[in-house]
Formats: sequence, C-alpha cells, structure tokens
Amino acid sequence: MNIEAMIETYKPEVEKRLFSHVESKAMPHALQEAMLYSLKAGGKRVRPLLTMAAADAYGRWTEEALDVACAVEMVHTYSLIHDDLPAMDDDDLRRGQPTNHKKFGEAHAILAGDALLTKSFQVLSQAGGPAAAAWKTEVTALLAQAAGAEGMVGGQIADIEGENRSLSLEELEYIHHHKTGELLAFAVQGGAIAAGAPAQDVQHLRAFSKEIGLVFQIKDDILDVEGDADVIGKPVGSDDGLNKSTYPGLLGLEGAKEKMNYHYDRALTELAGTSVDHDGLKTIASYIVERDR
Amino acid sequence: MNIEAMIETYKPEVEKRLFSHVESKAMPHALQEAMLYSLKAGGKRVRPLLTMAAADAYGRWTEEALDVACAVEMVHTYSLIHDDLPAMDDDDLRRGQPTNHKKFGEAHAILAGDALLTKSFQVLSQAGGPAAAAWKTEVTALLAQAAGAEGMVGGQIADIEGENRSLSLEELEYIHHHKTGELLAFAVQGGAIAAGAPAQDVQHLRAFSKEIGLVFQIKDDILDVEGDADVIGKPVGSDDGLNKSTYPGLLGLEGAKEKMNYHYDRALTELAGTSVDHDGLKTIASYIVERDR
Repeated sequence: MNIEAMIETYKPEVEKRLFSHVESKAMPHALQEAMLYSLKAGGKRVRPLLTMAAADAYGRWTEEALDVACAVEMVHTYSLIHDDLPAMDDDDLRRGQPTNHKKFGEAHAILAGDALLTKSFQVLSQAGGPAAAAWKTEVTALLAQAAGAEGMVGGQIADIEGENRSLSLEELEYIHHHKTGELLAFAVQGGAIAAGAPAQDVQHLRAFSKEIGLVFQIKDDILDVEGDADVIGKPVGSDDGLNKSTYPGLLGLEGAKEKMNYHYDRALTELAGTSVDHDGLKTIASYIVERDR
Repeated sequence: MNIEAMIETYKPEVEKRLFSHVESKAMPHALQEAMLYSLKAGGKRVRPLLTMAAADAYGRWTEEALDVACAVEMVHTYSLIHDDLPAMDDDDLRRGQPTNHKKFGEAHAILAGDALLTKSFQVLSQAGGPAAAAWKTEVTALLAQAAGAEGMVGGQIADIEGENRSLSLEELEYIHHHKTGELLAFAVQGGAIAAGAPAQDVQHLRAFSKEIGLVFQIKDDILDVEGDADVIGKPVGSDDGLNKSTYPGLLGLEGAKEKMNYHYDRALTELAGTSVDHDGLKTIASYIVERDR
C-alpha cells in the first residue's frame, strides 16, 4: 500500500470511532461542541496511522488498536488547543480555521483540552474488556509518561524556556524528542502492544520511533527553509539569516539533510530487527522523508 | 479516631508519597517547581482522607490505596490551578498564597495543570504491579469519568454557562454533583476498590458519596451566608439579598439546613448497608456537617 491507500484504509475507521467517543457521551452541549470542533479539524492523522500500521503487521487490526489510535489523537488534539492559547503561542488560525479559543473563548478551550486529555485515558482503560487488563495498564502508563511532565508537557516547557536564545544541538534534540517524539513513539508502541507484539519487537519499534521522530522534525525545519526560499527568492541552501535554533540553523541545510538521512537509515535498521514485516511503517517513514509540505 | 487523629495518621503518608511522585522524576526544573508549588499548598487533604478511610475499613491500608489517594489529589490540584486562571475565575490568591499563574505565569500554570492531570493516570496505572491490573483499569476508567467531560470538567462548563442568571435547583445540583461530587465519589470508591471491597459495598459507597457531596456543598453555601452575617451584621437567617444560585438563595437558610440534614441522613443509611464498619467515613461525614469554615 502507498501512503494514500493507507490513509484511505485507516482514516475513516479511526475518525468514526474518534468522534463517537465524544458524541456518545452525556455532557454539556457547549463542551461537546468545542471538543468535536478540534477533533474534526484534524489532517492526515499521522499518529493514528502509525498505531494502526504497527498493529496491522501482527495480523490484528483490532478494536483495541483503534482505541489506542483514538487516545493518541485526543492527546495530540488537546496539546494543539492548549499550545494555541494566548498565554502560549497565541495563534488565531490552525489549518485555516479559527483556533479553539478564537471560536469558543479561552475558558472553553482550556476545558475542552482538559476533557480530551482525560477522555484519552478513559478510552484506553475501557478498550477491549477485562481480558485486556494487563496490556492496558502498561499502555496507559506509557501514554501518561509520553504525554506528561517527562514527555510532551516537559518538552513544551523546555521550548518556552528556550525562547529568545540560541539553543545547542543537544537542547534542540531534548525539546523535539520530548515535545513531539515521545507521543509519536507511543503511537507506534501502543499499537504494537495492543496487537500482541513480542517485547523485543516493541523495543525495536521504540528505537525506530525515536529516529523517525527526529527525521520528522528535521524535515519540518528543512521545509521551512526551502519554503521560505521559494517565497523570498533567496537561493535554497543559503544559510544566511537562518534561525539558530533549527537543524539547518545549527548544521547548515546540507548538514541537516545529512543528519536526516542518517536517522532515517537507523530507523529502517531498527525496523528490520522486528519479527514481522513492517511494510506499513516503512511506507509512513518514507512519506515523512519525501513529503514536500 | 476523631478527625484530627485521622488527619494526623493519613496526611503525612499521603503527602510524602504525593510529592515523591513528582520529585523522583526527570523533568524540566521549572515544571517540577510549578507542580510542587500547588501540590504543597494543599489543606486538610479531604479527598485523600476519604480514600484512605474507605480502604482502611477493609483492613488494607495498602500502597495501592495511597496511590489512589495521590491520583485524586493531583486531579483536584490541577483543577484548582486551571480554575484560578485569568480566563476562568481570575484569582490572584489561594489559601493566602499567590495562585500558580501569579507565581509562575499563565503558560507554566496551564502546563503544570496538564502535567498533574496526566501524572494522576500514570500513578494509578503503575500502582501495585501486574497483579493489580484488573482493578487498576476499572479505577482508571472511573477516575477519567469522574474528572472529565461527563464529570468535573462538564460541571465546570455548566457552571460557566450558568453565570449571570438564576439557576433552578435542578441545574444547581447538576453543577455541584459534576463539579465537585463526582471526584469526591471517586475518592471513596477508588479507595474501596483498591482495598478489595465487594461490588455491593462499592455501590453503597458511591451512593454515600453522592449524598455527602451534596452535604458538603450545601454546608459551604450555608457557611457563606453565616460568615457574611458575622461580617456585615445582618441577622443570620435573613434571606434578603441572597444569591439566588445557592441553596440558601433557593430554599432559604432554614430550608437549606433541612436539605443538608436530609442528605446527611441518607448518607449514613447507605453507609450502614456495607459489609464492614465505616467508622472513618462516618467521622469525615460528621466533620463535613459540623465544620465552621
């Protein structure tokens, strides 16, 4: 399957279930509306795609994996709502639409985010039924670690603390690894665990995810530079005026591309170490490297 | 044991463990500081007290119950941090100290709240070890329901939506039941389940908690009126100028007291239906009714 076929296969199932977890519950209408607004504003659903691809390789595209995918997407969505708030990035638009607080007000946006984060743990803990109890507590602990102070929220704080000064490569990797890498890694691990992957595979997949998270971020930085070049007419590859706290800023554009390819190769090596063929994850990894936006 | 002896027994153990869950983890210092600041600003720790008392009645004051107590207190603390934000209640002080956002800034306060909420699920899912998997997924689902869109966050939204207009008694009870009652009920149920309480006891304890949550709120409203009377010299029991969206405002001061006693009696009846003596919960219930602040 190419990436388009994968999106076509998984996305409608994930979205149907994602929305139903909120639509099916009794809650104040204003809250439901704010939660669904941001859930429905999603794009390619990269994280759920990682979860479903990881699970599918073990021959079990189960309801449980779907719920892991929903939980990841809820955490991702809550993080975007809170990141957009005036006290944080103060963004008015996301994907061309008003941000949650612009649409519903700040109080509702804060609470919609809180509710989505909480819902993610409800969805996980109710996945599958009692027989799934063992993997569910493992996956719940992993999600909390990936999303919380030791993961995404920690990365967000480090990002804020690092604003307005130049970062070292080490600091930059800390931020990216925590702010975005940990949740991507959870998406892959969680899907594999729910599908009954052996522990050794889960370790390889975690290592794969860590590398692919870096690839994702370096590619983003590269696209920012090459995008800018198109717009302002500066030759692509010029390092003048680059933001020092990006990979091209710290390593130059060519250096960043080399680093991206290095981590991409390492990601594929980890994937080759698993007990099953992970064609789906390979397709997503190559999409991450080759995408042009 | 009277209430002071109970607080003396449980509070130091709960606090020691509560702080260690944050102090022992690798995270940015600024985040750790903001999380601990609010965790350490706590008062009597009523919710953990309910958890420990409920568990203790089954003869098992276990590490698991301590972790349930920590999870409840983390959720309660996060909710106070977010409630105090400028976009919500905009409070500068809590318990005589600067609120989290006054001390650390809004972005840090939002993220410290997010991290505490997430940490509560991590603590729960890691309590006890694999043998505890079955009750942990049950308790995790209960906490998520009590804290999220169908519980506390839903109550908070309903409260905001109800501002600046008179509420019916039914609306008032919806708000209180969801905004504070559900988490109190979880505190009791979670402790009992972790201690191996039979399912029928858990049902009685849930009903007890629902009643005691109402008692708690009605008493708060009564104290507000009687406190005001002391200050402004208006005779206690006068209903003139009462806020219509409080129990005394809707029922009069005497009506509110009658309603409080009605629910208190029902709470004790539920407690009498359990298979063990719940002296600890009785002590807490009577403290809630008799307290003068």
